[in-house]
Amino acid sequence: MDSFFNLKTPEEVYKIIEQFGPSGEEPVSLGAALGRILSHDIISPEDLPHFARSVVDGYAVRARDTFGASESLPAFLDVVGEVQMGQYPAAMVSEGQAVRISTGGMLPEGADGAVMLEHSMSMEGNTIAVSRPISPLENVIQPGDDFSKGSTVLKKGHCLQPQDLGVLAGLGESQIPVYKRPRVAIISTGDEIVSVDKQPLPGQVRDINRYTLGAFCRRNGAVPLHIGLCPDSFETLKTSAEEGLSRADTVWISGGSSVGTRDITLRVFEALSDFELLVHGISISPGKPTIIGRSGSQPVIGLPGHVASALVVAEVFLTPLLSRLSGRDLISGVQQPSVDAILARNIESASGREDYIRVRLIREADELIAEPIFGKSGLISTLVEADGLVRVAMNTEGLYKGHRVKVLLTGALR
Amino acid sequence: MDSFFNLKTPEEVYKIIEQFGPSGEEPVSLGAALGRILSHDIISPEDLPHFARSVVDGYAVRARDTFGASESLPAFLDVVGEVQMGQYPAAMVSEGQAVRISTGGMLPEGADGAVMLEHSMSMEGNTIAVSRPISPLENVIQPGDDFSKGSTVLKKGHCLQPQDLGVLAGLGESQIPVYKRPRVAIISTGDEIVSVDKQPLPGQVRDINRYTLGAFCRRNGAVPLHIGLCPDSFETLKTSAEEGLSRADTVWISGGSSVGTRDITLRVFEALSDFELLVHGISISPGKPTIIGRSGSQPVIGLPGHVASALVVAEVFLTPLLSRLSGRDLISGVQQPSVDAILARNIESASGREDYIRVRLIREADELIAEPIFGKSGLISTLVEADGLVRVAMNTEGLYKGHRVKVLLTGALR
Repeated sequence: MDSFFNLKTPEEVYKIIEQFGPSGEEPVSLGAALGRILSHDIISPEDLPHFARSVVDGYAVRARDTFGASESLPAFLDVVGEVQMGQYPAAMVSEGQAVRISTGGMLPEGADGAVMLEHSMSMEGNTIAVSRPISPLENVIQPGDDFSKGSTVLKKGHCLQPQDLGVLAGLGESQIPVYKRPRVAIISTGDEIVSVDKQPLPGQVRDINRYTLGAFCRRNGAVPLHIGLCPDSFETLKTSAEEGLSRADTVWISGGSSVGTRDITLRVFEALSDFELLVHGISISPGKPTIIGRSGSQPVIGLPGHVASALVVAEVFLTPLLSRLSGRDLISGVQQPSVDAILARNIESASGREDYIRVRLIREADELIAEPIFGKSGLISTLVEADGLVRVAMNTEGLYKGHRVKVLLTGALR
Repeated sequence: MDSFFNLKTPEEVYKIIEQFGPSGEEPVSLGAALGRILSHDIISPEDLPHFARSVVDGYAVRARDTFGASESLPAFLDVVGEVQMGQYPAAMVSEGQAVRISTGGMLPEGADGAVMLEHSMSMEGNTIAVSRPISPLENVIQPGDDFSKGSTVLKKGHCLQPQDLGVLAGLGESQIPVYKRPRVAIISTGDEIVSVDKQPLPGQVRDINRYTLGAFCRRNGAVPLHIGLCPDSFETLKTSAEEGLSRADTVWISGGSSVGTRDITLRVFEALSDFELLVHGISISPGKPTIIGRSGSQPVIGLPGHVASALVVAEVFLTPLLSRLSGRDLISGVQQPSVDAILARNIESASGREDYIRVRLIREADELIAEPIFGKSGLISTLVEADGLVRVAMNTEGLYKGHRVKVLLTGALR
């Protein structure tokens, strides 16, 4: 079969994937922005904080009034008021005076620092004894200390985290410019496939890829659209692929596993408008018969029919593809959750291709042990037993027991 | 302030959190089950696969007809038909015969193995020459090889991944029993807090915790309910907390940062029905003034007002709390995404408490370098600069530059 393929290396495929980009932008409300990708830099519209705030509970003072203070020779100050939270301070601080303040309170006029409650002692009347000096601006944050007006807060391409939403809230940004989530049209093809609610007859199996690929998309911030089940027929599959292109940003066909189906998938792709074949076979196992092309600017993908192979191709190549379509910056885009572990036994591998081996992780004392899961290639039970994948690089003949390997997490541990 | 607190160690707090559990179960459709937690073991309702399948493209044969075959002395077999995908094979295999079969095709009667296409050669007429012997059952998976009827497929407490949905689809499980997502009532309190769409006056700041805690909940599979903004008033806060208890599984109040607000939060908790105070202060920095209690079986949490402290407490203690409320099994529940890195400089720390230091990760050659982010405690810009947290254990005085540390990922790299 190799003769039909002009296999690309994984590195070549990654480069090819870089030609794709996001399909558009939209504003989302702040409460819905978790995990979305910024389509513009966020520039601070104002100084944050916008007033000088105390970062301690204590007293707003003039720092110079505390200079030289010590336990044995404290500085005595008159307490002339208290800062109410959320209000412009009524009191102001003159020489020899202090104003009670809570963490987050606005520094009153005249004060240039705050003494911690722990470093003061209440005396008779309204007097306090301060036992340690502070320097000017001590225990205070100034306007713009977080972000000054016009500075860059977050960059285009950044994937928004809880703390980012907090900063955006602090700046009053309630509508956030993000890239649209990529929509992925998923088509399962094969005469033997029936939908999940059917009882398969002998020779038939239920549609698995619809669910695995759909969930894979969701996990990567994309929106799966299930186009449907297709028998191995050129016309039907072409209609489905065209429907997918009109409704989604990319079309993924997971082939039935027969040779005939694979041929039909390629012929259908070649019949799409403005089609270019970019990848026809990858030097990777499992996943060799993968097809990548484009119809206009839309990537079209032909995946192996068996779920185990399709998921390896998804983890390895469609994660970066979805990053590109999401507009995610490359640094975070290529990052996938992984752990280091010690290989529990030798793995043989053919040179000239990249192998992905499913492993189970076992914690022994302080180490994680990666135990390869072997089993006939058609099984799906190995998928749920595995915690991750170990990559065996192209020009090695395997990996040795006891060596430290990187495990790409694919299971519940990620 | 320490005198008001009977500080608990982090270990004590983790134990206390273990008393909480999920609030109920519900069925979800398979397509919506990603990330949900199984509330029952899944038992295979049938053998999977339910018929013998070829895992190669080639010929279904009787293994014994290939015994002794070699390149120089091949076995010659008559091809008597072809297995159609998805159909019960019309042909059967007798002595000296072969039937063409694709990957995933049903093995015809009489055959007990499959010869790979690559190990056969078409001869004149319908004859093939097989150049390698196969053993019985070679290149074939048998009924029940994946799961036999009655065997356990996935365990209660498991967080469903794409591949798990695939296996469930293969078994025809379209409705999945899962625990309900925990609902979290979030209340921000403090006289200085205004909503995000308001222009704050001097002394006021916008509500940040609503968004950070809400997104934190979503990231952990929980559903945030925003109860509202509360001024520092006992009655208003009590009404809000009770509304939260009636609508959600747990109530989280992020206090204004003033001492007064903290006192009100505790008094409100103590006024709730069947209340027990479990934790009043934790020996951790930041996050010491955290309160954990229960009203009946519902956890109620008082968080520090400052977003940086509240998020550390959330990452460290509320992640396991949400795991418990989600019904997630403990092994995966305590796992949080982390990487190893080399510390870029010394970190000092007070003995007797656990410190969490924000760090930025920098890739240098093959190593990740963790660079502590310093800055005044009241800032929020440090949050978006940080990739993660480094824990300094309780009974150490710090960590040294050059040492290998574990970084709990809190940013976009996770």
